[in-house]
Amino acid sequence: MTNAVEKFNTRVEIINSLLCVGLDSDIRLIPDRFLTSTTPQFDFNRWIIEQTQEFTSAYKPQIAFYEARGDAGLRELKLTMEYLTAVHPDILTICDAKRGDIGSTSEGYATAIFDWLGFDAVTLNPYLGREALDPFLKRQDKGCIILCRTSNPGAGEFQDLQVNEEALWEIIAWTVNDSWNTHENCMLVAGATYPEELRRIREIVGEMTLLVPGLGAQGGDVEATVRAGINTSSRGMILNSARGIIFSSDPSLAARDLRDSINQYRQLPDQ
Amino acid sequence: MTNAVEKFNTRVEIINSLLCVGLDSDIRLIPDRFLTSTTPQFDFNRWIIEQTQEFTSAYKPQIAFYEARGDAGLRELKLTMEYLTAVHPDILTICDAKRGDIGSTSEGYATAIFDWLGFDAVTLNPYLGREALDPFLKRQDKGCIILCRTSNPGAGEFQDLQVNEEALWEIIAWTVNDSWNTHENCMLVAGATYPEELRRIREIVGEMTLLVPGLGAQGGDVEATVRAGINTSSRGMILNSARGIIFSSDPSLAARDLRDSINQYRQLPDQ
Repeated sequence: MTNAVEKFNTRVEIINSLLCVGLDSDIRLIPDRFLTSTTPQFDFNRWIIEQTQEFTSAYKPQIAFYEARGDAGLRELKLTMEYLTAVHPDILTICDAKRGDIGSTSEGYATAIFDWLGFDAVTLNPYLGREALDPFLKRQDKGCIILCRTSNPGAGEFQDLQVNEEALWEIIAWTVNDSWNTHENCMLVAGATYPEELRRIREIVGEMTLLVPGLGAQGGDVEATVRAGINTSSRGMILNSARGIIFSSDPSLAARDLRDSINQYRQLPDQ
Repeated sequence: MTNAVEKFNTRVEIINSLLCVGLDSDIRLIPDRFLTSTTPQFDFNRWIIEQTQEFTSAYKPQIAFYEARGDAGLRELKLTMEYLTAVHPDILTICDAKRGDIGSTSEGYATAIFDWLGFDAVTLNPYLGREALDPFLKRQDKGCIILCRTSNPGAGEFQDLQVNEEALWEIIAWTVNDSWNTHENCMLVAGATYPEELRRIREIVGEMTLLVPGLGAQGGDVEATVRAGINTSSRGMILNSARGIIFSSDPSLAARDLRDSINQYRQLPDQ
């Protein structure tokens, strides 16, 4: 059984890219020419995928932008997943959903995201503890990407609180690394907008793969991010850009440029 | 403009009940006779609502149990909301979704939950901070119910971490009370399974309304819960029971009994 982390690493090796494209396909922002379709978000996503797939090791739809359109949006997210699974089965799929609830409810979300939609991985909120997230964590073939230090301006309000001389986000990094990762299917979210925190998270978790949002529109710097977060195999980062690629005038070029820019600062093995 | 808290309080006064019925309508658990319908979750919910509405001041569907069925489930949740809004517009509706994401994404969730589905209130996860939740908090007429001390067995793993001699959940209670509640539309989640923590939260937040899950199937004791959490108006608690009512052999009786049991320990004004 290949798990989500291995799937990502295999793809990274084959196409030499750490790039993840965020399919944050807000209906208010997608080009007019897609809006006449009965499935505008799916048609837009299919176009973005065809434009960017050769440079991309993961796709990460933000589920809120589909839920905002109700059942129609959710159906188009499923169409997107069916398309990806059929045409690009070797690219990792991440549902950015930041779920976290008591056990019986987490079971429902795991069914929705892993089974009905068919994602390889999901982002999760740690606030309710490991016991609550067990329905996700026990799925050995799936990736569980737990929020550690997020990319938003107000992230520090609680995440930076000091617990025994460490920040809460450091405690979460230690805990996930030391006791949640029994099935080696855990990853962490560490925002590109905070490279110092990213560097510290890399120290704590060794080789663990990190999902790093915040490049591009949110302001994360590529060089600082890659140098802070890369692991000893020159991998271990899923580097996400959404708006900066999907709403650029040339998504293919934007994806290629970002891949190249990332690789420029990535110390490749044997170099 | 009536906000969500006022809507709840008005209903409490009219029917003398603090009861919230959790519409956690897991398709695997609803009675067989509903399964032949094309809208089994909606039909079940409509029946539960008719059985329980006279004793109920709030309904709280857990959205995961609808998302587990994909777009069909989401459509049935919307049908449930349309029904409630049309037939029982004076009963508070809470979407138990525990959302929390960066600002542009929270906007998408707010649209989904407040506008497309039409809920009065939503449960939110505080981990990303106030800035991230602003798209919810700024909706003055809507209720923002923030996780403080949850009802699950593993809740303490991070929530109990000590920050300057207070638990993280105490810091969250202070913060929401002191600085997030500008529009007086904030509430907190405090599990019935931890009455000591509930009592402390009541001390911190004064008269603020608390959503208290965990009665019934999860093991919360009614007397301990009500005595610990009631405010000086003998209100201030949305007391939720889900499985213990909706999957009982007689939901109407179960709802009436729980309402009565709650009122027995509720010191009414002028008593």
